[in-house]
Amino acid sequence: MNTPQRKFSIGVDIGGTNTSFGLVTPEGEILFQKGWPTHQFDSPLTLAKSIFQEIKSENFSFKNCVGIGIGAPSANARTGYIHSAANLHWKGDVDIRRQFESFFKLPVAIANDANATACGEAIYGAAKGIKDFAVVTIGTGLGSGIFHKGHLIDGFDGNGGELGHTILIPDGRQCGCGRRGCLETYTSASGIKHTGALLAEDWAGKSDLAEWIHSGKDFSSKTIFDFLKNNDALAQEVFKKTGYWLGIGIANMVTMIGLERIFLFGGPVAAGAALLDPVVYAFREQVIFYYRDKTKIEITGLVDRTASLLGAASLIYFKEE
Amino acid sequence: MNTPQRKFSIGVDIGGTNTSFGLVTPEGEILFQKGWPTHQFDSPLTLAKSIFQEIKSENFSFKNCVGIGIGAPSANARTGYIHSAANLHWKGDVDIRRQFESFFKLPVAIANDANATACGEAIYGAAKGIKDFAVVTIGTGLGSGIFHKGHLIDGFDGNGGELGHTILIPDGRQCGCGRRGCLETYTSASGIKHTGALLAEDWAGKSDLAEWIHSGKDFSSKTIFDFLKNNDALAQEVFKKTGYWLGIGIANMVTMIGLERIFLFGGPVAAGAALLDPVVYAFREQVIFYYRDKTKIEITGLVDRTASLLGAASLIYFKEE
Repeated sequence: MNTPQRKFSIGVDIGGTNTSFGLVTPEGEILFQKGWPTHQFDSPLTLAKSIFQEIKSENFSFKNCVGIGIGAPSANARTGYIHSAANLHWKGDVDIRRQFESFFKLPVAIANDANATACGEAIYGAAKGIKDFAVVTIGTGLGSGIFHKGHLIDGFDGNGGELGHTILIPDGRQCGCGRRGCLETYTSASGIKHTGALLAEDWAGKSDLAEWIHSGKDFSSKTIFDFLKNNDALAQEVFKKTGYWLGIGIANMVTMIGLERIFLFGGPVAAGAALLDPVVYAFREQVIFYYRDKTKIEITGLVDRTASLLGAASLIYFKEE
Repeated sequence: MNTPQRKFSIGVDIGGTNTSFGLVTPEGEILFQKGWPTHQFDSPLTLAKSIFQEIKSENFSFKNCVGIGIGAPSANARTGYIHSAANLHWKGDVDIRRQFESFFKLPVAIANDANATACGEAIYGAAKGIKDFAVVTIGTGLGSGIFHKGHLIDGFDGNGGELGHTILIPDGRQCGCGRRGCLETYTSASGIKHTGALLAEDWAGKSDLAEWIHSGKDFSSKTIFDFLKNNDALAQEVFKKTGYWLGIGIANMVTMIGLERIFLFGGPVAAGAALLDPVVYAFREQVIFYYRDKTKIEITGLVDRTASLLGAASLIYFKEE
């Protein structure tokens, strides 16, 4: 027996590999969820139909549904489209919001992953009641969702709010976006790996991680994190430098916008103090003095595994904008 | 005979040296204005009284006044205070908004200079009808007033929106704020002078400006501008580099916030294309691709001489926030 009397929103989390949906109460409880490989849907409409059938067969009533939120790569909240997502098999511009709206006859809101995570943090996470904050998501890239006075910062065209593509070092590391020196190239998981490779030479004979890298074995930011747990000196240095760069990037964001709280999110956050301490140190050193003691940097209040789903489900509460 | 039937707001522009006020119609026409040396007022209340008497003696009716806007250094829109302004003789925290409110019994809004200029640009200038834009003011420092979705970005405490104090070059030039590498140290009038001094050595024998600097004569950004008008090679290089740095700073702001239009304001803007061209070139190179062709950088739509007064007068139209 389900709980058909409780209100819920439907969160849909579309990823390059997997897509899942969940029924989420206003308090953040997930009443039901299910996932599939993304490639089995040839369009948003076939995905909508599958979600519909699952909800029906579980005996949830759409009368209790306040709306649908969809988080997806390259999703644009203003246009309602997914625009040429590099890692989705739906090519070109996909009118996903209208396809869901016309099928479900319910309000639908969409956003990209990082913005959805920030909305989730605001509704279900540690940002409840805070109007000026950002979630910084450290993954393959560096994402951000920024709120100012309770409004999501996504610019006049829905593409704003991209901390990861601000220039940290003019003419610095090559970025996948075609430019050089983006913050993302220093502070994403790929940036962490890059830093490890660059520093390994200086640490020959002084670090097991350096030996590992020199031997030509495969490694990633996760490998560096594993060595960090054994107090490897190079691994510590890599996280220290990463934290320094990320601290400057966050300081620039806070100086520019005036944020009260920053939440870090994503795999490398598991490094805990090894990452957070240098971030906070650099932030306090590099931010305009007003915010040195007023702005706090913390680990996210969302659980990694369900954050994307909660983020998507929360989007409907920002639909009025 | 005045025009007592027309609505107006009172703009008060408080500077370290001079203070002026003006009666400004919603269309931006200045019906009357007057100024004094700032030091002759021992408090905001004596200033309020002088303004009151002038308006009375000119036979304007307060019935037509929609409110009062005050632009001042270190003015905080949230608190209503001027907080320890370095170049005002009113020391400590000055409760200027409440002093004006209780004297005039009218709505009063305050803001710092750069934010007031941005509000003026929105109401009377080239930003009419644009919701996502920034005004970048190049003076002794580098100020900015940023709007997103029609809201002024000033952060949770009224101190946000400070483009000039974002870090352009980590560990770069010493800034007056105590940190290093702030955009302001490269792109303000003082930054322009600093760049001229640094580059002069490389240009010995190839530039009259370089000779001037080597001879130990006094010079400022204005001197460099004067040589620029004679096509001096060093002066051109200084403005090219300044434009490059400012272009990166603006690119980071636009990547972070998603702005449609940027307006440049202040003395060095008189250099015209010598400054604007490298700014636009660097901006297009350094901004996230979404905005390369969509965001325009222009010279302000406000006239320098009256901009501060119009900016102050416009503040009342943003009071609801």
